[in-house]
Amino acid sequence: MQKLRVGILGATGMVGQRFIQLLETHPQFEVTALAASDRSQGKPYSEACKWRLAGEMPLAVRSLTVQPPAPPLDCDLIFSSLPGDVAREAEESFARAGYPVISNSSAFRMDHSVPLLIPEVNHQHLELLEGQRKRFSSGGYIVTNPNCSTIMIALALAPLHATFGVRAVIATTMQALSGAGYPGVASLDILDNVLPFIEGEEEKIESETRKILGRPKGSVIEAAPMKISAQCNRVNVADGHMAAIRVQLDQSTEVEEVGKVLASFTSLPQELHLYSAPEHPILVTTERDRPQPRYDRDAGRGMSVTIGRLKRDTVLDYSFVALSHNTIRGAAGAAILNAELLIATERLTAKS
Amino acid sequence: MQKLRVGILGATGMVGQRFIQLLETHPQFEVTALAASDRSQGKPYSEACKWRLAGEMPLAVRSLTVQPPAPPLDCDLIFSSLPGDVAREAEESFARAGYPVISNSSAFRMDHSVPLLIPEVNHQHLELLEGQRKRFSSGGYIVTNPNCSTIMIALALAPLHATFGVRAVIATTMQALSGAGYPGVASLDILDNVLPFIEGEEEKIESETRKILGRPKGSVIEAAPMKISAQCNRVNVADGHMAAIRVQLDQSTEVEEVGKVLASFTSLPQELHLYSAPEHPILVTTERDRPQPRYDRDAGRGMSVTIGRLKRDTVLDYSFVALSHNTIRGAAGAAILNAELLIATERLTAKS
Amino acid sequence: MQKLRVGILGATGMVGQRFIQLLETHPQFEVTALAASDRSQGKPYSEACKWRLAGEMPLAVRSLTVQPPAPPLDCDLIFSSLPGDVAREAEESFARAGYPVISNSSAFRMDHSVPLLIPEVNHQHLELLEGQRKRFSSGGYIVTNPNCSTIMIALALAPLHATFGVRAVIATTMQALSGAGYPGVASLDILDNVLPFIEGEEEKIESETRKILGRPKGSVIEAAPMKISAQCNRVNVADGHMAAIRVQLDQSTEVEEVGKVLASFTSLPQELHLYSAPEHPILVTTERDRPQPRYDRDAGRGMSVTIGRLKRDTVLDYSFVALSHNTIRGAAGAAILNAELLIATERLTAKS
Amino acid sequence: MQKLRVGILGATGMVGQRFIQLLETHPQFEVTALAASDRSQGKPYSEACKWRLAGEMPLAVRSLTVQPPAPPLDCDLIFSSLPGDVAREAEESFARAGYPVISNSSAFRMDHSVPLLIPEVNHQHLELLEGQRKRFSSGGYIVTNPNCSTIMIALALAPLHATFGVRAVIATTMQALSGAGYPGVASLDILDNVLPFIEGEEEKIESETRKILGRPKGSVIEAAPMKISAQCNRVNVADGHMAAIRVQLDQSTEVEEVGKVLASFTSLPQELHLYSAPEHPILVTTERDRPQPRYDRDAGRGMSVTIGRLKRDTVLDYSFVALSHNTIRGAAGAAILNAELLIATERLTAKS
Repeated sequence: MQKLRVGILGATGMVGQRFIQLLETHPQFEVTALAASDRSQGKPYSEACKWRLAGEMPLAVRSLTVQPPAPPLDCDLIFSSLPGDVAREAEESFARAGYPVISNSSAFRMDHSVPLLIPEVNHQHLELLEGQRKRFSSGGYIVTNPNCSTIMIALALAPLHATFGVRAVIATTMQALSGAGYPGVASLDILDNVLPFIEGEEEKIESETRKILGRPKGSVIEAAPMKISAQCNRVNVADGHMAAIRVQLDQSTEVEEVGKVLASFTSLPQELHLYSAPEHPILVTTERDRPQPRYDRDAGRGMSVTIGRLKRDTVLDYSFVALSHNTIRGAAGAAILNAELLIATERLTAKS
Repeated sequence: MQKLRVGILGATGMVGQRFIQLLETHPQFEVTALAASDRSQGKPYSEACKWRLAGEMPLAVRSLTVQPPAPPLDCDLIFSSLPGDVAREAEESFARAGYPVISNSSAFRMDHSVPLLIPEVNHQHLELLEGQRKRFSSGGYIVTNPNCSTIMIALALAPLHATFGVRAVIATTMQALSGAGYPGVASLDILDNVLPFIEGEEEKIESETRKILGRPKGSVIEAAPMKISAQCNRVNVADGHMAAIRVQLDQSTEVEEVGKVLASFTSLPQELHLYSAPEHPILVTTERDRPQPRYDRDAGRGMSVTIGRLKRDTVLDYSFVALSHNTIRGAAGAAILNAELLIATERLTAKS
Repeated sequence: MQKLRVGILGATGMVGQRFIQLLETHPQFEVTALAASDRSQGKPYSEACKWRLAGEMPLAVRSLTVQPPAPPLDCDLIFSSLPGDVAREAEESFARAGYPVISNSSAFRMDHSVPLLIPEVNHQHLELLEGQRKRFSSGGYIVTNPNCSTIMIALALAPLHATFGVRAVIATTMQALSGAGYPGVASLDILDNVLPFIEGEEEKIESETRKILGRPKGSVIEAAPMKISAQCNRVNVADGHMAAIRVQLDQSTEVEEVGKVLASFTSLPQELHLYSAPEHPILVTTERDRPQPRYDRDAGRGMSVTIGRLKRDTVLDYSFVALSHNTIRGAAGAAILNAELLIATERLTAKS
Repeated sequence: MQKLRVGILGATGMVGQRFIQLLETHPQFEVTALAASDRSQGKPYSEACKWRLAGEMPLAVRSLTVQPPAPPLDCDLIFSSLPGDVAREAEESFARAGYPVISNSSAFRMDHSVPLLIPEVNHQHLELLEGQRKRFSSGGYIVTNPNCSTIMIALALAPLHATFGVRAVIATTMQALSGAGYPGVASLDILDNVLPFIEGEEEKIESETRKILGRPKGSVIEAAPMKISAQCNRVNVADGHMAAIRVQLDQSTEVEEVGKVLASFTSLPQELHLYSAPEHPILVTTERDRPQPRYDRDAGRGMSVTIGRLKRDTVLDYSFVALSHNTIRGAAGAAILNAELLIATERLTAKS
C-alpha cells in the first residue's frame, strides 16, 4: 500500500514530537509536512525543534521546513496538536480546504458534529461525520481524541459501563510533566512538591467522558447520565498519567467479575488488527504495588491502560488505580489509532 | 517551671529525630534519655544516629548513650516512635513500670482503653485513661496519636462532623518519603515514579478516623458511623502528606459555610495556649493551586493543616485538598501536643 | 539608627525575592520601593510576584507598586538583581542620579572602576570607588558582587592564596536550579538528568575570580596571575551550589595546614561584626560524605561556605569540595553584606 | 551455532537483572542457571527478584530456581556480578572447577594474572590468561571488566593515549543511582541533594585506569605512568554516569585533532563485528549542552560513550564531558562484550 502523506500541526511541541517518533516506522503513514504556530516557522525542523524524546530526531524530518498552520500543506491528512487557542481556526481551515484533520487539540472535542473518538470505546460515533458533510463540502472533516487523562479513564470505564452500567465515578489523578508540554512546568515548582491543580483538566475529564460513553441520538451524542468527579494533580514524573478511581455501578457484582470484564476487554481495533492497537487495551495486574508510571507506562507499546489495586470500596462500589502513557495512548498514539480506524473503515484515503 | 525529663524510644529514626529537634527549645521538656531497638544501643547518640534533618544535631543529645527500650530510663515520661512490632512490648512495660507513655506507634492505637488523641478533636477521649488505672496500677499509662495521614484527615473532618455530620469520606493520599522512615523508600523506586500502595495505611485511615471522631460510651469509644474509603500513594516529596478528599454530609449547606467552619475552627489547645498548638489548626487557602507540600508543610510551625481547592463535588457533596507536615503534626509534634494537653489537664507531672 | 530605605530592582525574580526575605528583619534596612523590568510594572507586588520561597510573602511589601527600573525611586540605595541585558542601562542611570547601587547583576562586574566585592576577601578594592567620583559626579556609585559560583570559589581560595599562593585551580560545579531564576530550568530537562552546560558561567568564574583575588594597582585591579579552569553543570537541587575543586599552590605545605588555614579564616566583616557576616566564612567538615546541598546550604544562615573531602591530589596539590547557598551567600546575602560594609566604612548613609 | 549456556552469579541485583535483559535476545548465549548470595536462594527467580528494569521479567528465567553461588551450576560459563566481599571466594571456586568466569565484580580486577578487559582498549591483555593456566589447571579462568566509571574514562582516554600520550587526568564524576545497586541510595538522601562521596570509587578509577592503559611486560601488566585524580559524586539520575574530564597530553595538538581521534576510534570488536560492539565506541557531539544522561545513555544500545563540550583547558590541555550507561557499557554489557571477544578469539566454547 502507498503510504498516506501526513502533515503535523504543532510539530515542535511534546505531542508533535511523539507523532514524528511514532510515525517514523509506521507502515501506513509518512510525514511530509510540518507546521507550528510559534517562531519556528521558516526554519528546518532540526533547528526549529529541541528534541525532547529518547533517541535521535528522525532523519526524514530534519530538513523539512516548519510552515505556518494554514492550508495548503503537501499531505493527504493532518495530525494536529496545536494549543487550544490557535487550533480552532487552523483545524477548521484545513477541514474546509478538504483535509481530514485528526486532532489531539481540545478545540472541537465537544462540538456536536465532531466525534470524540477512542476506537475501542465508541467507534460508532464516527456516524457524526455525516453531519460534517454539509459543513465542509470539500470532503474535509475533523475527528478528535480526548484529553490525555480522559482517554485512560474512559477506556477503563467502557467495559464496566457496557456490562454493569456506571452510575458515578470519582477520579483523583497524578499526572506527568509531559502533559504540560515543553517547557511546561518549572523545575522549581515540582522538585520536592506536588501541584494540586491543572487548569481546565477537571472539567475536561467530567464532560468528555460523558460524551465518549454517550449514545448517538439523531445527529448528536447524548451524554451518558453518570456523575463524574475529577480532581487533578501534577507529580514529578516524566511520562505516565495515573488515576485513583472509585466507581458506583448500576448493577451489583463481584470483584472477580469486575476484574474479568476489564482484562478480557477487546473491541473493533483488535478485531481489525489495527497497527497501533494493543493486544489488550486494558491490562489488569494483581501485584499489590502496581501500576507504577516508570514500569507500566510503556505497556502495549504505550497503548495499554494498566489497572491494579482493584478492590471493593467502602463508599462507592469498587476502587482501582489506572495508568497509561499520556503522550502515546493519551495523545499522539490515540490520534494515530483514530486515523488507522478511519482507513480501515474507508473514510480516509490518499488525496486524488 | 521545672522541665519534665523526657525519654525517647526509637530515637534514631526519622520521627525520633523530629522529637529531638522539636524538644530542643521546648519550655516544658528536656531530653534526658534515648533508646532504640536497633544495633545502635550502647553508642553515644552522635555516633548511633545519622542525622537527617536540616541543621545540626542538637548538642545536648550528642553524648547521651542509646539504651535498650526497656525500663528503667532516667526520665519522667516516654515519647515513643518505635516500629509497630517492638512497640507493643516496650510501651506496655514502661506503662507497667509507672511511666506515662506518649506514643506515636501504631501498637495500641485501636486498644479499647487507650485514647487515640488529637487535642483539638477528641480531648474528651482522655476519659479512657480511667480504664488504664486498673491495668497499670503503677500510675503509668499510654496515650497514642494517630497515623500521620489520619491526623490530617481527622482534623479536617472534625469541624465538619461537629457542624454538619459527615456521612461518607473518600480520601486519596499523596504521601511524603519521610513517612516511610529512613532509609525507607529506595531512590530507584521513586525517581520518575509514584507508588500506589503503602502497606497498612488505608486500613489505618479507615479505622483510626472512625475511632477519633467517635464518642465515649461507657468505658470505650463507639466508632463514628461514617463510611471512609482511603487509597494511598507515595510521591517524590521529602515531607508533607497531601490528600484529595470528598465528603458527604448529613446536612446540606453552602460551600461558603463549609469554608467558614473549617477556617474558624479552634479548640481546647488554642484556649489553653498550649505551646505547640497553632493559632489556626486549619488554614483555608483560596489560591487556586494550593496547598503544595514545599510551600505549605511548615504552616503553623508544621502544626496547621492547610486546606485548599474547596468546591462542590458532583458525586459526594464537597471536595477539597488537605496538606500537613507528616513528621510534625503527623507524628512528633502530635505526640508533644498530646503531652502538653496532659500537663495542662494535670495528668502529667514530674515523677516524685 | 534610622533604617536606610531600600529600592530593589528585579524584585519579582528569585534573587529579588531573597532580598525581600533577608531584609524583612534586617536592623539597618527597610524596603520602600520595588522595580522590575517585566510586565509586572504597575501592579501591587502581591499580584506581580509568584512567591517561590518558603513562608509567606512579607506583609510590608505586598502593597508596594512595582515600578519601572529607572530613577527616581523613593529610597536611599538600590539593590539590583536585574538580568544582565537591562542592568547596564538601569544601574548606570541610578548611579548617575546619585544613588548607591549595590548590584548582583553581571553588567559592571568587570568594569575597571567598579569593585567586585566579597567583604572577607577584597575590601581594599573599595578604593576603586574613587574612580567613580568623576564618572558619577552626583555621588552615586556602583558596587557589585560576583557570580554565585565565583563567590564560593573565591572565598575558598582567598585564605589559600594569601597564605600559600594559588597557582592553578580546576573547578567542576554542580549548581542548583534557583541559579537559573524562575521559571528557569524546565522540569522535563532536569528530571533524571544533569545538564553539563550553563551559559556564560565558566567564563565568569575564570575572569571574576582573578579580579577578586587581584591587587589594586593605580586605579585598577591587576588580575591575580593564577590559571583557572571551570566546567559547570546543572543538577536537580533547589538551592546550594557545589564545586569539586583542585588547587595547585605556589608553596608546598601539609594537608593539615591547608585545613587550618581554611577553618580559621576570618576577616574585616567578622571584626566589624557586620550583621550578615557569618562567624565562620568557611566551615571545614571532616565527615566523609559532606558537604551536601540539602544539609549544608543553610550553614551560617546561608552565608558560610562549607568545605569537605579535603585531601592531597594526585595531579594538582589539593582537592576539596565546596558548597554554599547560591541565592544567599551567592547573591542577595552577598549584596547585603556589601552594603553593610559600605555603611560600616561610612560610604553609605541616608540621603539627605 | 549452538548457544553457550550461561550461569549468572548475583542474578537478583541491578547488574544481574541487566545481564538477563541483555541476554534475552542474544544470539550466542542462553541463561540456564541463576545464583545469588542473599536470602533468595531456593526460590524461583520470579519470586526471588524484584524486577527493576523497564519491561517485564523475561519468561525464560522466571521459573529458574536461584541457587547458591558455588559450583556446580548447569552452564558453560559464568557471568558474575556478586558483591565484592563474596565474589572472591565464589569466582575462584568456579574457575578452579573449570568454568570461565566473566566477572563484573571488583575482587580480581587488580590481580596480576587477571585481565581487566575493555575489548576496544586492551584486548592484548588477554595474554594474562596464560598465567591462569597453572593456577586453575581445570581450564577455568577469570576475566574481569572495570568499574562502571573507569570503563567510560578509560575508553575516552584510550585513543588519546595511543595517539598523543596521556600524562595526567583530572576526572570529576556525577554518577547514577543504579550504580549503588538496589535498594542502594535512600530516596531521602538524594532528593534535592548531591552526595560528594562514593566509597572506594575514586581509588578504583585511579588504579584500574592505569592497569587498563598499561602494557603487558613479562607475565604482568605494567601500569601506565599517567597521574589520575578522581572525585566522585552521586546525583539524582537513574542510569548514566557522567564525568567532567581534563587531560594533559605528552604531545601538543589542536582541539580538532583531539575530536577526530576520539570520533574515529574503532578497534578489534568493531572489526570482528562482535554482537554487542557499538559501531562507534565513542560518539563526539558538538551540541553545546550535551551529553546528558537521559538523552545519551542509550546511545549505541548503551554501549557507546558520548563525549561533548570538548575544548582547550586553561590548566591542563583539554577538557571534555563523557557519559555512558553504567549498567550496560559500565557493567553487564561490558562483561558480555568480553565474552563475545573470548568466543571470537576461541578462548570460550561450549563445555564438552
